Order: sequence, then structure tokens, then C-alpha cells
Amino acid sequence: MKNTLGNSVAVTVFGESHGNAVGAVIDGLPAGIEVNEAFIAHQLDLRRPYGKISTPRQEADKFTIESGVFNNKTTGTPICILIPNENTKSKDYSKSYGLARPGHADFTAFSKYNGNEDYRGGGHFSGRITAGIVAAGAIAIDALNKKGIKIATHIKKCAGVEDSKFTDYNSEIDLLNKKLFAVIDDSKGEEMIKNIEKAALQKDSVGGVLETVVLGLPTGVGEPWFDSVESMLSHALFGVPAVKGIEFGCGFQCADMLGSEMNDAFYIENDIVKTKTNNNGGINGGITNGMPVTFKCAVKPTPSIAKSQETINFKTNENTDIEISGRHDPCIVHRARVVVDSITALVLCDLLAQKFGTDWLGEK
Amino acid sequence: MKNTLGNSVAVTVFGESHGNAVGAVIDGLPAGIEVNEAFIAHQLDLRRPYGKISTPRQEADKFTIESGVFNNKTTGTPICILIPNENTKSKDYSKSYGLARPGHADFTAFSKYNGNEDYRGGGHFSGRITAGIVAAGAIAIDALNKKGIKIATHIKKCAGVEDSKFTDYNSEIDLLNKKLFAVIDDSKGEEMIKNIEKAALQKDSVGGVLETVVLGLPTGVGEPWFDSVESMLSHALFGVPAVKGIEFGCGFQCADMLGSEMNDAFYIENDIVKTKTNNNGGINGGITNGMPVTFKCAVKPTPSIAKSQETINFKTNENTDIEISGRHDPCIVHRARVVVDSITALVLCDLLAQKFGTDWLGEK
Amino acid sequence: MKNTLGNSVAVTVFGESHGNAVGAVIDGLPAGIEVNEAFIAHQLDLRRPYGKISTPRQEADKFTIESGVFNNKTTGTPICILIPNENTKSKDYSKSYGLARPGHADFTAFSKYNGNEDYRGGGHFSGRITAGIVAAGAIAIDALNKKGIKIATHIKKCAGVEDSKFTDYNSEIDLLNKKLFAVIDDSKGEEMIKNIEKAALQKDSVGGVLETVVLGLPTGVGEPWFDSVESMLSHALFGVPAVKGIEFGCGFQCADMLGSEMNDAFYIENDIVKTKTNNNGGINGGITNGMPVTFKCAVKPTPSIAKSQETINFKTNENTDIEISGRHDPCIVHRARVVVDSITALVLCDLLAQKFGTDWLGEK
Amino acid sequence: MKNTLGNSVAVTVFGESHGNAVGAVIDGLPAGIEVNEAFIAHQLDLRRPYGKISTPRQEADKFTIESGVFNNKTTGTPICILIPNENTKSKDYSKSYGLARPGHADFTAFSKYNGNEDYRGGGHFSGRITAGIVAAGAIAIDALNKKGIKIATHIKKCAGVEDSKFTDYNSEIDLLNKKLFAVIDDSKGEEMIKNIEKAALQKDSVGGVLETVVLGLPTGVGEPWFDSVESMLSHALFGVPAVKGIEFGCGFQCADMLGSEMNDAFYIENDIVKTKTNNNGGINGGITNGMPVTFKCAVKPTPSIAKSQETINFKTNENTDIEISGRHDPCIVHRARVVVDSITALVLCDLLAQKFGTDWLGEK
Repeated sequence: MKNTLGNSVAVTVFGESHGNAVGAVIDGLPAGIEVNEAFIAHQLDLRRPYGKISTPRQEADKFTIESGVFNNKTTGTPICILIPNENTKSKDYSKSYGLARPGHADFTAFSKYNGNEDYRGGGHFSGRITAGIVAAGAIAIDALNKKGIKIATHIKKCAGVEDSKFTDYNSEIDLLNKKLFAVIDDSKGEEMIKNIEKAALQKDSVGGVLETVVLGLPTGVGEPWFDSVESMLSHALFGVPAVKGIEFGCGFQCADMLGSEMNDAFYIENDIVKTKTNNNGGINGGITNGMPVTFKCAVKPTPSIAKSQETINFKTNENTDIEISGRHDPCIVHRARVVVDSITALVLCDLLAQKFGTDWLGEK
Repeated sequence: MKNTLGNSVAVTVFGESHGNAVGAVIDGLPAGIEVNEAFIAHQLDLRRPYGKISTPRQEADKFTIESGVFNNKTTGTPICILIPNENTKSKDYSKSYGLARPGHADFTAFSKYNGNEDYRGGGHFSGRITAGIVAAGAIAIDALNKKGIKIATHIKKCAGVEDSKFTDYNSEIDLLNKKLFAVIDDSKGEEMIKNIEKAALQKDSVGGVLETVVLGLPTGVGEPWFDSVESMLSHALFGVPAVKGIEFGCGFQCADMLGSEMNDAFYIENDIVKTKTNNNGGINGGITNGMPVTFKCAVKPTPSIAKSQETINFKTNENTDIEISGRHDPCIVHRARVVVDSITALVLCDLLAQKFGTDWLGEK
Repeated sequence: MKNTLGNSVAVTVFGESHGNAVGAVIDGLPAGIEVNEAFIAHQLDLRRPYGKISTPRQEADKFTIESGVFNNKTTGTPICILIPNENTKSKDYSKSYGLARPGHADFTAFSKYNGNEDYRGGGHFSGRITAGIVAAGAIAIDALNKKGIKIATHIKKCAGVEDSKFTDYNSEIDLLNKKLFAVIDDSKGEEMIKNIEKAALQKDSVGGVLETVVLGLPTGVGEPWFDSVESMLSHALFGVPAVKGIEFGCGFQCADMLGSEMNDAFYIENDIVKTKTNNNGGINGGITNGMPVTFKCAVKPTPSIAKSQETINFKTNENTDIEISGRHDPCIVHRARVVVDSITALVLCDLLAQKFGTDWLGEK
Repeated sequence: MKNTLGNSVAVTVFGESHGNAVGAVIDGLPAGIEVNEAFIAHQLDLRRPYGKISTPRQEADKFTIESGVFNNKTTGTPICILIPNENTKSKDYSKSYGLARPGHADFTAFSKYNGNEDYRGGGHFSGRITAGIVAAGAIAIDALNKKGIKIATHIKKCAGVEDSKFTDYNSEIDLLNKKLFAVIDDSKGEEMIKNIEKAALQKDSVGGVLETVVLGLPTGVGEPWFDSVESMLSHALFGVPAVKGIEFGCGFQCADMLGSEMNDAFYIENDIVKTKTNNNGGINGGITNGMPVTFKCAVKPTPSIAKSQETINFKTNENTDIEISGRHDPCIVHRARVVVDSITALVLCDLLAQKFGTDWLGEK
């Protein structure tokens, strides 16, 4: 439903890059979940620009909770979180209206909204909208954690550098969730950052791949066909304009495998059903099998680059060139990581509420 | 919504592999669309087993339209299509209940439905359910064609063999849609088939990648964030249990590209806005930009293989081995292709109905 | 969603009066509910024409369960129930196409579907579609009964005659649910029937009021604002074309009461919260308070009457007269009663699944 | 969906009586609708307390538009409207927590949210939440007006006094929409006000009936069965906790009419199809027939009264008495009228967007 995600637990996002505020309304979270404002702030910090490799637009991301929280707990009714926009330099943008930034939604928004779109800074298509998602997701992550469900995402690949693989989910997840630049191997992270800086100097940008793992989900979550775990997660994650691919488990590699390689052999250990491999990413027939749920998202290089590009002016209907002069990120992969975690948490709360009822997440 | 896909145009699937029938109800298609039963039959034929590389379970897939069609035209009210199951050998399956076929939904279904699932032949998780989707999709494809919107899918990769790339969408699409084994280069198709047969002899199975292209979509289709074209298509396509990855445009390759390489430069030619490359797969910010919409699906190797595999018996809670003896496909990639086309058509009808209203598709 | 009702438990109806079949798909009922085919048949019998006061179109309403039931229990996946149409005399209708039966949907269907509607016997707007709802509802009623939740509807008023009021819900509910003509006081029922017969002789028809009571609902069911119990029930019940009014508790009488009269005083008895009166029909702020949920539906007189009426021919665009000659009910109030019960049960299953999770209804 | 209403055009409400703010997010309104802030303020004024017959809690209802409006026009993306709460005296309420106000949602909210509800002033169940609906509805009303669709509601009955009937919709609608106390006959209004004041003096409250008429809807709006115009409107209107009954056209009177009286005879005049009576309230089979859509809502007397009432303390589990001392309305019927108009407008925008597409309302 357009800007609303979910059924039993639903999130509605609103806002534009240079409007009054961005934010989100979360409906359907059960009553009695503790709301930790410090954790929300921490998660927003993970999304904020980072050192030299990010946009100089620095905002404190102060948020207010307008409803749905009372005595620091969820009331069970809709939670509206508002994050006012500050430090907006709208004049940067108004002059260039009509110039379609390649890879961006300027032209499609113009086409869809007949010239009524808020074009400043990408308007409603700006990555800034994800701040509302992250704030909402923080409450969901907190609630899941209390149920023993953990989520973490690392930068699997960025600017041509690959991070190490997970070796021990449990310990690495906790470490990752504290890091500003979420790599398992920090030396790989430093290489990535160097390459990002290099691309920035060349007025260019880089992309990457994020890998996410979810631990602690019970078996039997998800529905066959159109509410499969894959359907629900991909629907939500492809909402982020920069995501161009999603794969679960071994994903596209399955095309080169034999059935006997791809199939994950079941076994029972201490009365718990497990699989020897996890090529299916913890999901069989759309439903969790108790193994870690794993998936990867391809994040494209930031479309806003300073390099001169060919494009059109859709107001004058002319071919022309563009040099984007505003403040931009040479890479958003590291910032997108907390967005992926947040969206994942919100989708899982929805699926769990469908299975166990609205109250389940709130139970002690 | 579980087994229902879509909003303005919605499809509900039902049925089990060895129950009375499988089928679908399509609601929201406008009145006045001609229903071509021969085309529905043709599409079902594309899904049916093919020569030696498919299951020996051969069904005519005779269907009946129970409602929603009058004088060979849609009435605007729900269309129920029923495809009775024939040639079911349920005894093959009842003996093995409890043995979790690796890579299949046996165990997750048992876990989710507490032992009440129809386990015969995979029950509701069987690929057989896609017959209903294909029948429903045929009407949608027909309607889109009349509006100048064409869809085609080819087997980009299968059993280690790569098909040629598209060189001319328009002509190749028409050819592909007539082929039983949908490759651009038939010699590559023959290689694939040989390799599939080889895998079958080794009691094994193979996977592949399907590539889909949609021509003729107007600009401005899709919504920002959670009804993005990518969100809607991936949600629907990940409903198919064998699909483990989806990427739009250049997809995961974007991780290794610079922004200046990934961005698709706009230009105007004969008053039409185009892009020089199409790395974004015709979608910017979730909304169509008028270029062909392109995406790829990773289809895993059929999990049912004759080779002996380690697994559990979830009824007795024991570790054991399994040799699956029924009738199975060593490959479903070629059969899945028409399922992808059908799902794509149904999703596009939904998005178009949201934008232009329910009546648009039915207009002359 | 058009012909789909519900979220966690959803019912999709399809069919036309003179098509192949009518039916319904129910999705989201938990696995393990016993499916009693005799009870489904019994409920369909309650909906069928009754003696002289009904249409001479008599159908056995034989149904088939095409999916979702295995070993006489729900599997948790979609249940498709099909009820073939028999004894259809389509020729009665084709001649009169263009003549808008007053009070009927002929003209609005023509206007909406641009002349593609299946006009025979009212097509998709026929009361016959409720057969699918009743069959689906029977499974829901059964499941609710096992949870101690009982529903009954009596003909509060019909053809100018008022039934007695409930004096003891528990005993009267069981009696009512066995009666073909659902009145508390059978002598009042006989009067009603006499008056219906009288109207039939005068080529006319009568309406009435149905009163429904639901016992055994836990407190806390329903959501504030747009998933209130009143919202959900009225949405579903106004789907029936003959229903023109719905009121909960004392309903429209509240307009003439003082707050001190209308308010239901709470008290505690044996640790159970009750109210001294039940003017609010068991619902405060959209949420159940543990008292019986009560509501009334106004059912209009059957629009199809034999009496000559003024109308238009929308094909020729002329004013004209109409004498409807087919087989029609002089009253549908008594037949609508089981439809109201069925819809109520389906809505309650949905609300309960939202609160307690999909599995709750299936638990022992 | 809980606190979200609608599909193509969706409204999400949030807020509590004594929280930071109440508000609404409207998604799906097309781009290019002029947003008249003065009209929003005017509509909020109609909802605000009125003279001596209302609560002394007087708030300016200053609102801010946080998103979705640019250059005074809708952008096509979500509009978040925020109305900060002022003048809240929370101490009035905290002392009395546990005392269930009869007729109010205190007990059901406690039961549903396990004691985590924001109980101050009724929290999320407060009529204050309707301020967000009215602000959102103002934009919808404005958009409909530009399409020639007019809505008006008058106080048909209040405090034992009946207003006159409509004699000429067109002129009366315009007058009504300017009046603070919406009666056709102002002398009847004065009587009502006297009676309300009388009830207030007796520490009591009164209810009433609101009658709404919609002019200018095209034929063919609405869907059969579960998106019928009656279904959609009743679903939305029963969201308001004070509404206990809804009837369309002649409503419950139909129970006492013959088919020949109830049926609305069609005729053609100047090429336009009309009906001689309008007992069906402009709706046949759930779909508009071009006549005015008319319906009535029963609004119960305000449950908060100063008179002593029997009740329980649900915290201590004791029977007790309550005298509600806060600031309350002896009547909310006159204030509810603009809420009904607003909800009606939002539902109609949704139905029209479903039929004609998202863009239709925004077109010139």
C-alpha cells in the first residue's frame, strides 16, 4: 500500500528531504514494549553521515514521539515519530529543476506527479525518508531482541573490497551492531573507506553488497506463496530506491549448483532440527525452518555524483549536461546497513504478529 | 495477504498437488477483456512437463472457468479458474510421510500446520499450484498485449550453459513466446537440455537464471517506497518457492560499478525520453521511466532428487536417509518461465489499475 | 478488497446466478479444524428456499471442497468450496435485458461494466452468491463453537409482525439454530408466514429486521477506529445487497436517550466484569467488553416483484414498464438469517486471528 | 487495518487526548490538489466546542502540514498533518485511573492493552482523534468539490427535537456547510440547544441522528459485495466510537414497506437516468446509481456525564460509584457532523481513485 508496509504491524512513512519533517507511524506493535529513546538515537546515528566518506549535511536527527508511547512503553496504539529537517539548503536545488539527475527519480517523479513533486533534494525519494524507518525500526529491533531474535548486517562488499565471512554469528552480530562501519574485518573496512575516498576525489561514487543474518526466529514463520518470508522481506527492502537486487541463502549461486549440492540436509541435534548447510537461507517453501535467515542486498552507487553527465532538461525538453554541485555521499552502503536492519525488524514483527497474534511481542 | 496477491487486481491461489483441483480467483480485472481459452491452454502447455527432461506426470491441464466470463469476455467480477488434478499417485507419498525432503517444505509445513498439512506431493507447496497462476496470468497477458505491453522471459542460464543476450527485444520477444524451451539461441538450448538429461541420469537436478523483459509500459507506473515496481514484482515472484534471488537491471553487478558507470544517461529522441544504458532496468525510484523493465530470477535446482540424501524423520524424530522415488523434474527452469511471465503480467495489471483506474485495461 | 473480506482470515466470493458455479475461497483458517460436511449441508439448507414463501427454484446446493481439507480437517491452506448451479432457466432473463428491475443492480451493473455484465438472474449481484458465504461460514461457526463462541440470529420483525424478545440467550440460541424459520415465538413466525404469503398473492414482497447475538467472545477483541468490531461487522454485512441498515446494541434508540440511560453500568460478579444493561451491544470504543455482542440488520423487501412497475430500458434509453415473471422470493429475511450468522462468524475469526494469532482457533 | 482507512487513498490516524499531538497521514491523494489552509481551519472550527453546550476545553487547533504539500498543492506523496495538544489538564485523569467510565472505552482499553494504555482523557479513544480526520478530510472535501461532488450533514434529530427535512438539496447543502450548528431549520436548532443546556444542568447528556447527503457522484462507483459503497462508508463511520447505527436511504423503515413501495422506479429525463423515490439512498447492489447518496448515523449521548453512576474499579476489582468531574460535552452530535462529512469525503476519494485511477481527482 504505497507508503505503508505491513499488515498486522504496519509502518507508514512520510516526508520530503527539504520539507518540515520526515517521520513514520507504526501501528500494531503490542502494548508494553519498553521504548528506549537512547537506542533510537543510537540507531539514527548509525544512519547518519560518517566522516569524510559522507555528505557534509550533518543533522542531529532529533526526533519526537508524538503518540503511542506512555510512561516509556508502547500503548498499543499508533506511534508517530517525527524527525524535523534542519540544515536544508533548498536554494541549491531550485535552480536546477528540470535537469534529470541520471539514476535518480527526478524524471519519474515529474512524470508521475505532473510537475507537482517537491523536487528539493529528491523530495520524497530522498534517502532522508529512511530516518523515519530507522527510528521506527529501533523499537521493533528492541522488541525482537527481548524475544531472543537478533539481526545484523555487514558490508559484504564495497568499493571493490570484500569483507570476511561470518565465522561465529552470535559474537559477530553483537560486535557489528556496535560498529559505525559494519565490517567483520576492520582492516577490510579501512580499505573500503580508502577506495570510497578515492572515488569521491574523482567526483564519482561506489556501491556494494550488504549481507544480513537473523538469528532466533522460531520455525513456521511466514506463509506459502504471497506472504513467504522472502516475499515480505524483498517487498520491504526493494522500497529503498538504491537496492537493485536481493538474494536469500546462496541466492544466484544456486543457478550453478546441482540439487544434491543446493539441498540442505536435515539432522537432529539435541532435539533441535538443523541443516548441515544453509543454502536456502533458513527458508523452505517461504517458511522459516529454524536456521539463521540470511540474505544479501545489492546497493547501487549513489546516483548523485559531481562528474559531468549527459542528461535532459524535462522542462525545456532539451538534451544537456549536468554537474551536480550539492552535498552528496560518495557511498551509502554503510549508511544503508541500519536501514536494512530496521526494515527487516519491522517485517519480522509483522510476520510474528500474524502467526502469534498482536500481543505476543509484548508478553514478558 | 497469504495466498492473495495484489490490491486493485488481486489473485487468490488454492489447491494441493493431490487434492481435487488447483486454481485461482482473479478479481479486479475490468469488464470487456476478451478471454481466449486457446491462449490459456497454450500458456498451460508452456508450463507442462517437456520431453525427457521433465516429470513423467503428464496432465492435460484441462481447465474450467467457473465464473466471471460471459460471452467470452470478462464481466468485471471475480474469475474462478479450476484445473482438476488427474493422474495423481498418492500412494507414492503416504508411505514416506515424516521423511523431510531436503530443500523442500515438508518439515516447515509440518511445523507450521502441526501435522495437518496435505503432505501428498508437496501439497499446497507443490509447483502444481502455479498452474492456477498461469491460467490467470494468460488473461492478464492478453489484456496487456492489447495495450501494447509485451512480456517475455528467456532461460539466461541453465545447467552451466548461458543463452545469448537479447539483441532486438521486439522480434526476439515474439519468437520466445512461441518456444517451448525459451532460449534466444536454440543451439544453447540443446546444450542445456543435454546437461539436464545428464544430471537426471546421475539422479540429480540443475537450476538456472531466468531473464525477463517488459516492453511498452508507460512512464510513471509504480509508487515510491512500498509499492515500487521492484517491491511489487519481487513480492509476487518470491512467492514461487524455487526462486531464491531477484535483481533488476544490472542487479548485483552494480556493487562493482562506479556511479558514473551505473547511472543511465537520459536523452530525448523524437520527443521520447530514453536512457543510453539501462542498468536500472527501466525503474528509477521505484517508478517506470519508459525504458524496458528488465529483471532476473535465480531458480534453484529441483529439490526432489533420486540420489540418496541425509535427512530426518520428523514423526519419529530420527536422523535417517532418503531416496525420493516419485516422478520428478531434473529441472524446472524452463517450466518456471511462463510462471514468471504470468506473475509479472498480474502485478503489472494491478499497478496499472492503481494508476489509471480499474477500467483502463478494458478500454478499447 | 472488492470480493475479498478480511485480513488474517479472508474470504473471497465468486460466481454468478446462472454461471457454472458459485463458491468461496477461505484463507487463513488455522490447520486442524474439523470440517463437518453435514453441518455445511445443514447451513446451506437454512439458506435454501422454504415452502410456499420462497422461489420455486429449488437446488440441492451440493458442494465440493476443492482444496484445503485433508482427512476431514483444515490444512491451514486455502479452502475452495464450489457449489455448481443447477436448475437455471437462463432464457427467462435474456429476453428482458435492458429492463432495469427497480431496486435491483441491473442498471448499476450495466453502468459499471459497460454492458459486459452477466445479467442472467442478477449475475454476480444475485443472492445466490451468498451460498458460497454460507458454506465458508459453516466452517467458521463450527470452529467458534468449539471455542465456546455462539452466534444466533432471529427474525425480529417481518411482514409487520414482531417476534418476542430474547429472555435467555443460551437456551434460545440453540433452539434458533435448529429452526428453519428462526423466530423465538413460533406463533409469531406463523403470522409472519401468513403475511408473506399474502404479499406474494398480491405480487408483492416484504422486508424485515434480523437481530443477532454473539455469546462467549473474550474481552479486548477489535481495534480502535477502523478495525472496530462495528466497523468490521458492518463492512461485511453491508456487502449483502439487501441490507440497508445496521445498528449495534440499542442502535438508533440511543438518539432519544440520556447519557445516564444509555451508559451501561459496570459491575463485578464472581470476578467477571459485566454491565447491568447492554445498550452498547457488548462493544465500547470498538472493542468487546465481554457482554453479548448484539446487532440488528434491516433487510429490504425483495426487489423482484411480479407487480407492474415503471422503469427504463437502458439499452434503448426509453421509459417503460416491467412485470418480472421469473421465480422470485416474496421475502428473503428468513433466508438471510444464516447469511448474517455466516458473515459474522467469518469476521469474528478474522478479529480473533488478529488478536491471538492464526493458530489460536485451531488449538485444542 | 487498525488505524488506517482506505486502499487507494488511505488515512492513518494517531494520537491521544493528552499526548503531544494528534494527527493523520493521508496517502494516495493525487498531485496538484490545491490545499487551502483556511478551509482546513474552518473545518476544524466546525468540530471545536461550541458555546455553552460544549466542553470548556477550548483549543485553537493550530495545525502544521509536515509533508506532502509544496507550493500550496499536494505533491502526490503522503501528507502528514499534526495538531499539537494544548490546554491539557492531565491531573484530572490520573487520580481516577481504574474507574471505568460507563459507556467509555476505559475498561476495554485496559483489557486490550494490559494496563499500558494512555488513560488520560480517553487516550487514543478520545473524540480528539477526530481532529486529525477533519483536517485530512478538509483536503478531500475540497478536491471533491472541484469535481462537482458535494457533501453535507445536518442534525436530523437531537435532544428530542427533529429538524426539517431537506426540500432542495443544492441550496441547503451550501447553507448547512457554513453553519456552526448544522440544522436546516434554525428555530429547531435553538430548541435543540435549549434541551442540550437543560441536560447539562441535570449533569446528563443527549444523543441524536445525523443525516448526510452526497450530490454529484457519477454512476458505477463502488464494488459488489465487500467494497460496496455501504460497506466502505459504514466501516469508516463506525470507527467513530459514538456511532451506534447507520442506515442508507430509508434504512430501517424498509422493514415495514412492501417491495412495491421500497423499489425506486427508474425514469429517464433529459438523457439522465433518475429514480422517482430514493429509498435505496442512491445505491443499488452496492454501486451508485446517480441519485443522491443518503445515509443516517445514530450518535449516542456523550458517555462522560457528571451524574453519579455505578461502575467498577478495574485496578482494585471492586464495585464502586463514579462522578466524572472533568470538562465534558453534554452533546457531541453537532460536533460530530463535520467528522461524518470528513470521513465520507475520504472514503469517496478512495472509491473514486479505485474506479478512475489515482490521478483522476487531481485532473482539471
